[in-house]
Amino acid sequence: MNNEIITVRVNASTSYDVTIGRGILQYVGKYIADLGNIDKVAIVTDDLVDALYSDTVEKSLRECGLKTVKSVFKNGEKSKTLSTVGKITDDLAKAELTRSDLVLALGGGVVGDMAGFAAGIYMRGIRYAQVPTTLLAIIDSSVGGKTGVNLRTGKNLAGLFNQPELVFADTDTLKTLPEEQMLNGIGEGIKYAVLDGGELFDIMEAGLDDGNTVRFAELCVSYKRDVVEADERESGIRRLLNLGHTVGHAIEKLSRYTVSHGFAVASGLKVISEACVRRGLLDAGECARITALLDKYGLGADAGYPVSALIREMPHDKKRVGAKISLVIVNAIGKCAYISVETARLKEFFS
Amino acid sequence: MNNEIITVRVNASTSYDVTIGRGILQYVGKYIADLGNIDKVAIVTDDLVDALYSDTVEKSLRECGLKTVKSVFKNGEKSKTLSTVGKITDDLAKAELTRSDLVLALGGGVVGDMAGFAAGIYMRGIRYAQVPTTLLAIIDSSVGGKTGVNLRTGKNLAGLFNQPELVFADTDTLKTLPEEQMLNGIGEGIKYAVLDGGELFDIMEAGLDDGNTVRFAELCVSYKRDVVEADERESGIRRLLNLGHTVGHAIEKLSRYTVSHGFAVASGLKVISEACVRRGLLDAGECARITALLDKYGLGADAGYPVSALIREMPHDKKRVGAKISLVIVNAIGKCAYISVETARLKEFFS
Repeated sequence: MNNEIITVRVNASTSYDVTIGRGILQYVGKYIADLGNIDKVAIVTDDLVDALYSDTVEKSLRECGLKTVKSVFKNGEKSKTLSTVGKITDDLAKAELTRSDLVLALGGGVVGDMAGFAAGIYMRGIRYAQVPTTLLAIIDSSVGGKTGVNLRTGKNLAGLFNQPELVFADTDTLKTLPEEQMLNGIGEGIKYAVLDGGELFDIMEAGLDDGNTVRFAELCVSYKRDVVEADERESGIRRLLNLGHTVGHAIEKLSRYTVSHGFAVASGLKVISEACVRRGLLDAGECARITALLDKYGLGADAGYPVSALIREMPHDKKRVGAKISLVIVNAIGKCAYISVETARLKEFFS
Repeated sequence: MNNEIITVRVNASTSYDVTIGRGILQYVGKYIADLGNIDKVAIVTDDLVDALYSDTVEKSLRECGLKTVKSVFKNGEKSKTLSTVGKITDDLAKAELTRSDLVLALGGGVVGDMAGFAAGIYMRGIRYAQVPTTLLAIIDSSVGGKTGVNLRTGKNLAGLFNQPELVFADTDTLKTLPEEQMLNGIGEGIKYAVLDGGELFDIMEAGLDDGNTVRFAELCVSYKRDVVEADERESGIRRLLNLGHTVGHAIEKLSRYTVSHGFAVASGLKVISEACVRRGLLDAGECARITALLDKYGLGADAGYPVSALIREMPHDKKRVGAKISLVIVNAIGKCAYISVETARLKEFFS
């Protein structure tokens, strides 16, 4: 076991640590107890993660003198609803949690969304920490405080900003992660590599392994931290994090969400990079390095939707303000920018 | 028509005006348009209020160049659920509202709760204003930014803090208010009279009428404003606003919510005032003035639950922190305080 533990400090509307290491899950109790003045911890998780990691977490919490209760829902995107939030808040009420107790999200993005949302509204907000167990949740959901639910009318159309008190990530939990879930994280990781360039791009080009995953996560989290600290409420540079997402969301919608998020974002990254080359905004050689990286992880295939169809879906994007949408462009690896494009001129940009 | 319009400025985490007047509803469009940069207004209301006031509000908004859409749900406490919040957010999505558009709550407390909650989570927060049409909503819900939903496990167990950009109240709307709804406002009004004393208590002793209701509302709103500005997140003196509510909530629960909120709060006020006399905290003459005021409005009857039953329900109160609950006591009319009482010692306090 390699117990190197790194910490990234996030200063959002509240300050907290993102702690990352290998084989550290059994120590989570001490980190939670150190937050201070906690009586009960409600572990919120899904049935798959519950079977894998709840015992370790509960044991660790109890050894540190904390009481534990548990709220478990069914794994998967279909659970990402207000009705699941209602179930969790009901469980918190049954367990008589008070404002001084803590909700602990144990799992991937959906668990973080549901637990963070529930903790944000139960008694109008109680304490909250995250133990992400997927690559996507570790590198992306652990900073920013965004939670979301899907509505009948669309994905992620409602949500809250809610900052955790601690994020505690054991990269060894990725060993049990299904391949498709891993690729979701990789797709997002390549996005960070293109945004940040340098060491992060180099690590991804070399290939992720047990030895560099903690450092990889540290770099992604640090990059996102810098952006979110500058713009917590997403009115400015935080929009950069949507690189690949405007097209990616359109692909997801057109496929009725049969295409995974990681592949959709990767495809979106490819579409926007190639459009940037045609518009003279990006050097063709840099673009080739990006597409080669996508290919390396099996994420370089074309999604197969014509530009006209993609454009038709874009105006429904949450990032739209009036008749314009915000688009993130690539000028070079490690140098991206956002521009505002009138929806009527999107065709011109992409063709 | 008396068009005297008064404005109370609230400086919470955001600043906004509470505008109160008689016969001013037809001018609401101008006040909303003056907020600036609004394209669409989504009127959120219930079916009863919709039939009475939507036309006037829509006409006024349209005359000021604003587009309008509407989301209507069934009147009543049973609608105060996450499922109604989901319905409203779906309606907002169908109407393609963006972050620059505005949700307008038109109605009483339940409408304010549902619309404020939905506006707070749709796209993680869009613009929001309130047009309260009940006495309780005008004097109590218009300041503080609290929204809440009922869970299966209990009332108001989940919610958000969400401050509106404007509160616009026409006291003439109270002419269509059912008697029981009016008493809900009166019960809360007497609470403010006991907290603030002075002119507010005098007005209530003289009796509310068309001539003094705007001033009465101004005094209640100003009192609450002062308290909320000092303590928006309810960690200190805002607890004073719970005068009568700890016992009141217990009465509501024991009656399975057949006793109205106004009567429950009034009863709670009586129980706590009489306990304060027995504990030597309050002069018997002052207590008699309070109970006489309750009698004047038909709110002075005993709820009929023994102290032991009331105490049993109190530890479930949201205001509980660990093994203690916070209780607001009356030292004199216009002079209240909050104390922390161990749940084990509640019996001693009330007997």
